[in-house]
Amino acid sequence: MHQKNILQGIIAYPITPFDRQERVNLSLFKLLVERLVLSGAHGLAPLGSTGVLPYLTDEEKEAVAEAAIQQVNRRVPVVVGVSNLTTERTIYHARFAEKAGADAVMVIPMSYWKLTEDEIFTHYSKVAESISIPIMAYNNPATGGIDMSAALLKKLLQIPNVTMIKESTGDVQRMHYLRRELGEAVAFYNGSNPLALCAFAAGAKGWCTAASNLAPDSVLELYNAVQANDLAAARAVFDRLFALLQFIVAKGLPRTIKAGLKIQGVESGYLRSPLQPLAEADYRQLESILLGVR
Amino acid sequence: MHQKNILQGIIAYPITPFDRQERVNLSLFKLLVERLVLSGAHGLAPLGSTGVLPYLTDEEKEAVAEAAIQQVNRRVPVVVGVSNLTTERTIYHARFAEKAGADAVMVIPMSYWKLTEDEIFTHYSKVAESISIPIMAYNNPATGGIDMSAALLKKLLQIPNVTMIKESTGDVQRMHYLRRELGEAVAFYNGSNPLALCAFAAGAKGWCTAASNLAPDSVLELYNAVQANDLAAARAVFDRLFALLQFIVAKGLPRTIKAGLKIQGVESGYLRSPLQPLAEADYRQLESILLGVR
Amino acid sequence: MHQKNILQGIIAYPITPFDRQERVNLSLFKLLVERLVLSGAHGLAPLGSTGVLPYLTDEEKEAVAEAAIQQVNRRVPVVVGVSNLTTERTIYHARFAEKAGADAVMVIPMSYWKLTEDEIFTHYSKVAESISIPIMAYNNPATGGIDMSAALLKKLLQIPNVTMIKESTGDVQRMHYLRRELGEAVAFYNGSNPLALCAFAAGAKGWCTAASNLAPDSVLELYNAVQANDLAAARAVFDRLFALLQFIVAKGLPRTIKAGLKIQGVESGYLRSPLQPLAEADYRQLESILLGVR
Amino acid sequence: MHQKNILQGIIAYPITPFDRQERVNLSLFKLLVERLVLSGAHGLAPLGSTGVLPYLTDEEKEAVAEAAIQQVNRRVPVVVGVSNLTTERTIYHARFAEKAGADAVMVIPMSYWKLTEDEIFTHYSKVAESISIPIMAYNNPATGGIDMSAALLKKLLQIPNVTMIKESTGDVQRMHYLRRELGEAVAFYNGSNPLALCAFAAGAKGWCTAASNLAPDSVLELYNAVQANDLAAARAVFDRLFALLQFIVAKGLPRTIKAGLKIQGVESGYLRSPLQPLAEADYRQLESILLGVR
Repeated sequence: MHQKNILQGIIAYPITPFDRQERVNLSLFKLLVERLVLSGAHGLAPLGSTGVLPYLTDEEKEAVAEAAIQQVNRRVPVVVGVSNLTTERTIYHARFAEKAGADAVMVIPMSYWKLTEDEIFTHYSKVAESISIPIMAYNNPATGGIDMSAALLKKLLQIPNVTMIKESTGDVQRMHYLRRELGEAVAFYNGSNPLALCAFAAGAKGWCTAASNLAPDSVLELYNAVQANDLAAARAVFDRLFALLQFIVAKGLPRTIKAGLKIQGVESGYLRSPLQPLAEADYRQLESILLGVR
Repeated sequence: MHQKNILQGIIAYPITPFDRQERVNLSLFKLLVERLVLSGAHGLAPLGSTGVLPYLTDEEKEAVAEAAIQQVNRRVPVVVGVSNLTTERTIYHARFAEKAGADAVMVIPMSYWKLTEDEIFTHYSKVAESISIPIMAYNNPATGGIDMSAALLKKLLQIPNVTMIKESTGDVQRMHYLRRELGEAVAFYNGSNPLALCAFAAGAKGWCTAASNLAPDSVLELYNAVQANDLAAARAVFDRLFALLQFIVAKGLPRTIKAGLKIQGVESGYLRSPLQPLAEADYRQLESILLGVR
Repeated sequence: MHQKNILQGIIAYPITPFDRQERVNLSLFKLLVERLVLSGAHGLAPLGSTGVLPYLTDEEKEAVAEAAIQQVNRRVPVVVGVSNLTTERTIYHARFAEKAGADAVMVIPMSYWKLTEDEIFTHYSKVAESISIPIMAYNNPATGGIDMSAALLKKLLQIPNVTMIKESTGDVQRMHYLRRELGEAVAFYNGSNPLALCAFAAGAKGWCTAASNLAPDSVLELYNAVQANDLAAARAVFDRLFALLQFIVAKGLPRTIKAGLKIQGVESGYLRSPLQPLAEADYRQLESILLGVR
Repeated sequence: MHQKNILQGIIAYPITPFDRQERVNLSLFKLLVERLVLSGAHGLAPLGSTGVLPYLTDEEKEAVAEAAIQQVNRRVPVVVGVSNLTTERTIYHARFAEKAGADAVMVIPMSYWKLTEDEIFTHYSKVAESISIPIMAYNNPATGGIDMSAALLKKLLQIPNVTMIKESTGDVQRMHYLRRELGEAVAFYNGSNPLALCAFAAGAKGWCTAASNLAPDSVLELYNAVQANDLAAARAVFDRLFALLQFIVAKGLPRTIKAGLKIQGVESGYLRSPLQPLAEADYRQLESILLGVR
């Protein structure tokens, strides 16, 4: 029997920092993870989009997963991203994550060739059979290239250890639909930053966000206000956060989180090409936005 | 000095019923208006999209506006739709509405040829100059064919008697943006039914909806829960309403409201061609959805 | 028995000019029609999108239709636009056009509320029954708001006097599909200016265009090259025309044709508000584009 | 000085076949390459989308590139796909391809995170500097996730050995624009199968297509008709091909080419998961379409 609610609240996404030669900087990565844990995040998700999973080699993915799990050291749950274009590699990384001590894995059906619904279902089934920890099915057409319908997401939940859904389409109607179709029991998580208030209003169990790197207190404050059923307070903190949430999505999470950390005096390393640092004007804009968040 | 908050809460949209010969049935229209007033709506909006404004002749528009204003008889504010492709006709109907006693007019920049931002601004300016009652600027690309940017909406508010904005794009980020840009004072209204919970969460002053024709109690309950800052209660009633809200948008408001009234035993007349009654299967689905709303 | 090929080649679209008080200027309209006939156009289409049909009153539409038919005086076929939101008004104008001597009418299913396929089919059927001249079914989601599927267009051709299709989606695959489904006999016309070369390559019988107002020789040259099976010559003249075709679509036909005529020293009157003249920079760009056409 | 027209005509895309254990089947791959060369293709492009490049390991990519180059043995030019998410890996594979004897490499700016125009330009510059053979810049938002503007494509051509552009957006206006902007000298290639006739009409130098696997004679016949300036003949053969071209794009090239080869009695191996064989109904439809192509 799988536990559905191993994750709740704020699931924070660390970046994967590189050194000047564009090699993964593991010790700096651990520091950034530690920062997120200390900031009060309820869960950690290494090797997500923010962590530039698809830009890493197999060996680097393994090293990053292990580093995150060791550093967190069971203080909060860790969900490791293991998505891959092929089923074989996804299984490989899912097994590795389980062995390394991950609490769950996150799988987005990455696509070069658009997958049919049958192919997606089979992909999840095979990955799920190969491990015994829960899977968070992640829907994000903007990065993954496939938009899983609400009906397909519902079908995926029939696979025993697919117990969580992360929705990042930014379509709030889908959240309402999922809630209605799946009932209170379903654990769905919002991955669309500018929709955080709406998603919580719609009943999301948690918010998967890189914003915790730059504004951890406000992010927690929003969640706590919703938990306290205080809509007015939630709206007030969300209004402060909104410009930041739009900006980090518009300009790309790895670039903006790295730049934001630098602005806040936190070492954040380098990006891996072809990704380049924020343009100067964007950097200035982010500085002014961060002042407004408090 | 214009009063910004003449409207707040639930602004209900009556349909315009026709007789078998497809002539406007004014006495039935008055009954349907009375029903909405008695149901507790905080405002009435005849000649909206629901009221098939663009399908009526000039004479019919005038008769419908007068009938609504007389029937409501100042019990709640009346906002009359006066949108037209040409500036001259829009001014004509705006003046008529003012003389007839409307509290405000609603103007959507209808387009056959996409209008430039300058053309839209000039259009609103000329209409605004010709009357002294407030204007609600209405953005709905799905019916009007033009999507006014948040920046343009903000600019329109510089026109003295453009004091209200009705947003129906279904883009909740625009609502957050408008709130942040325009501050607490701005009166913005949500016109996207499936976004009602989100829009209220985002701070909308009111909800412009045809759903009041079919589920007036739940619609009011949602608004009251938000006013009471009770997010959990708001979510509970919205979850009951959601299927209805999606259905009436997906199948078209005039068709679905007419069908829903019939299901509820309320006379609702005929549609004007080319609009036809709901297909049989859709009608059955609406019956079952209405049972679920309670 | 309806004649399918009453139209072939270049069907030219006149603008509807207004005087300074924004009243239709009929005598100037006749001059602009005469210019198109003398320029060699194979057919004339008054009251199209270029002729701002939806911005005219019923009386103006009648006057413009009569003026065009009288001026052309059977030298080439005249297709009169009679589209209207309601079925009743569409029938009214179709009958008027037939009585006035039109060779065919053009009908686009205008939408405020999206119509179902059944509603569209019934709309065309009722209009078709009310007249005995042929109908050109016109598909243009960008102005009409509805995109008729290839399957629906095929079905419309089952109505006896719906004998022609004008496709303006700019989707060349649909043209290939229509050709394959309907065979050589179908008379389909291209209404997407920047697709003129492709559409002729795909087998379009004609090109419905406002470009004849500004570059009649090049437009005819393109058609003649295609008729002569000379692809290289067709490509050469199309390359000269292309910037103009993109520009007039991007900036709107009524505005750009009026401006272009002025640039060429032809009186073209005024627009009806909310439409305004081209912005100064656009006007300069059009001047330079027109120099390059020929 | 780079030779711009090393490629002209039909550039054929082989699939990468797998064995039952989903390992690359190199000997079968060579046979499929040989078939394409013997069928008259003017160029070969291994490791394209059809060849499921992104689903292969680095070692597999190297083996496939070498196998193709050896088998073709200079009979026609070979363009090797070397696209990768990171700049470092793209350079690695580009260098490998050059050493292995490729005539050119093809690079699509793959994206997980949307790249800025500066990042794309820098990516191409660095890859170009690392090799001395020409680069074909490939634009295909449907698979790569980024849509390079015509202006950016034009800018890429300033890089000395970026000499060819493959356009697969299916936007024929962009082809006209590129031709007009870049002149007769630019070598642009069409990668959108259902646009093949239009693209040739617009002046494309070649057609990058997997259709050569299933209908090599018709594909060549289309090209030859265009070369002979015989539009009518080109249209006739394209009409025969059109259903096949739409189908292979709609259902995905690796799946459909594999199935089509099987239908034609050619061994085509297995797919790599998550890709699965065509569904039964699709397979039957492809059988019937192939009968119609002749």
